Amino acid sequence: MLVQRGREVGEMEAELKEMLDDLESLGRSLPDPSRNASIDKLRSRVKHLSELAKFAPVHRSKVKDMSAEVVDSNPYSRLMALQRMGIVENYERIREYSVAIVGIGGVGSVAAEMLTRCGVGRLLLYDYDKVELANMNRLFFRPEQVGMTKTDAAVQTLSDINPDVVLESYTLNITTVQGFETFISSLKNKSFRPDKEGSGVDLVLSCVDNYEARMVVNQACNELNQTWMESGVSEDAVSGHIQLLIPGETACFACAPPLVVASGVDERTLKREGVCAASLPTTMGVIAGLLVQNTLKFLLKFGHVSPYLGYNSLKDYFPTMEMRPNPQCANAACLERQATNLTGLCL
Amino acid sequence: MLVQRGREVGEMEAELKEMLDDLESLGRSLPDPSRNASIDKLRSRVKHLSELAKFAPVHRSKVKDMSAEVVDSNPYSRLMALQRMGIVENYERIREYSVAIVGIGGVGSVAAEMLTRCGVGRLLLYDYDKVELANMNRLFFRPEQVGMTKTDAAVQTLSDINPDVVLESYTLNITTVQGFETFISSLKNKSFRPDKEGSGVDLVLSCVDNYEARMVVNQACNELNQTWMESGVSEDAVSGHIQLLIPGETACFACAPPLVVASGVDERTLKREGVCAASLPTTMGVIAGLLVQNTLKFLLKFGHVSPYLGYNSLKDYFPTMEMRPNPQCANAACLERQATNLTGLCL
Repeated sequence: MLVQRGREVGEMEAELKEMLDDLESLGRSLPDPSRNASIDKLRSRVKHLSELAKFAPVHRSKVKDMSAEVVDSNPYSRLMALQRMGIVENYERIREYSVAIVGIGGVGSVAAEMLTRCGVGRLLLYDYDKVELANMNRLFFRPEQVGMTKTDAAVQTLSDINPDVVLESYTLNITTVQGFETFISSLKNKSFRPDKEGSGVDLVLSCVDNYEARMVVNQACNELNQTWMESGVSEDAVSGHIQLLIPGETACFACAPPLVVASGVDERTLKREGVCAASLPTTMGVIAGLLVQNTLKFLLKFGHVSPYLGYNSLKDYFPTMEMRPNPQCANAACLERQATNLTGLCL
Repeated sequence: MLVQRGREVGEMEAELKEMLDDLESLGRSLPDPSRNASIDKLRSRVKHLSELAKFAPVHRSKVKDMSAEVVDSNPYSRLMALQRMGIVENYERIREYSVAIVGIGGVGSVAAEMLTRCGVGRLLLYDYDKVELANMNRLFFRPEQVGMTKTDAAVQTLSDINPDVVLESYTLNITTVQGFETFISSLKNKSFRPDKEGSGVDLVLSCVDNYEARMVVNQACNELNQTWMESGVSEDAVSGHIQLLIPGETACFACAPPLVVASGVDERTLKREGVCAASLPTTMGVIAGLLVQNTLKFLLKFGHVSPYLGYNSLKDYFPTMEMRPNPQCANAACLERQATNLTGLCL
């Protein structure tokens, strides 16, 4: 059986059982039988508490290997079926991959849940913000998590959903000097898969809501020669995009006038007093779905990995395009990657 | 403050507090001070239980009016912002609408969560199935809900997320005679908004996984002259579609060779022993997002409501089309609607 009781509930039940024993022996040791009524009252309170404790949640335990067996108790049967259907050659390889998600908001949190349910090996989550009731119009966070940091709340939910995924939570702001250093060193860390080439992660997903943070992810990925995907939703909530960035091979985020600006996103509105951007769980869910689908195609090598995919929900229009790097890019690390890439091509 | 403790936790805390009082008076009444050690031990157990009870969930209370006020504690600020941005004329009207969702699986459950977070007035949920660990590769259901009916588990989760939504749960199979009757009469029920024209719901969303159930939804909607939207995901998990059906005005599900068959879905595989269809949280999340986005556009009258939208995830290709009703349709109720529609046009 894959379902087990949570730690707190187990402790609670043990404690209540011992209380019954204590009351039993206390009752026996009392010389005056008139006190038995008090003991009985306490005993019935313990029984009521035991009933109430039953409403506390249970959890699923870890699964050693991904099995394709078709039984109701197998959380991976519908994913392993992708192999039998000829879509993916080796689905189980997903357990070797590490994905970093920067920004655990409307898009990032849903992307994290999708990858967790897909059984990805390891997720690195970055955010400095706390959960608020104003976030409840998007998927993932629940009202009872209000006040928790987004990373802690995400780890709580995701580890309950799939304890097989290794979760690393970084409650920090990557745009600060200290935050950037931790960000870079966490991406470099190879302890999960020491034989991996390059950095310690296979892909970085940017799910942030402002230009500055995107430029920081761009800088880090250019420095580390790290492939990443960018995502964004417009401030009127009805359009969005995803984009694949391979340092030196595609345009970097600094190469072109940022698409996010071109598409009308102005993150300053997000911060203005008394004004907020609109958001919808639909648009954010679609963008998260397209982003993680592109991630699965990239990691598991199937289908066409889109270099850019837009979503205009008012017209149900999905623009695509491809962008080469800009030889006059202002980002020095990008120019370096472009040079290495050219040398590589000439050899 | 909009967050309150859950009922079980509240009862648990009250019970624990009274136990402390009981122990206090029991201790005072004991003539022999040597028994105080037993009382102290029981008291420390009660304190430990109080600590453990803190891990139980809290809930948000109802909100009377949808406010556009930009404060962290307003769950509707980002939705009401759609008005200020000129996307929607009157967002708050969403509270008047009733949406029925048939099939609370990979697509239906996410659609229900999106509409709940958007603050829809009333949701009617239909499913006969139970939650299994094999469902955990899609969004929404959690391992601790295994064994519950999908409708009960959905109501549990959705009422926690947004207690403002009126939830009706129908644990039944619409393809049985009895189930079909209850289905029809629940759609007709107008107690939520007695002045509404037509049926008691504004839209039916079909999120089922087989041809037979789709034909039943089609039959009910043709009989009731009820607009509905169909959705589906292929059994190889990498494509899907949504479709708008207005009786007499667009093709009904029986008018054309079902698109779901044309796109390669064969629900018989779902039921074959030892064989199961593949599924992905990404594809299902995208289809749910497109379906509810189309629902919002239809209900709140903005943008273009798509008559048909496909999603081929391997190519990131999104086909669209429009289909007129078939004058030779085998469905008698469809022919009736076509006749009424023609008469209406000629007048």
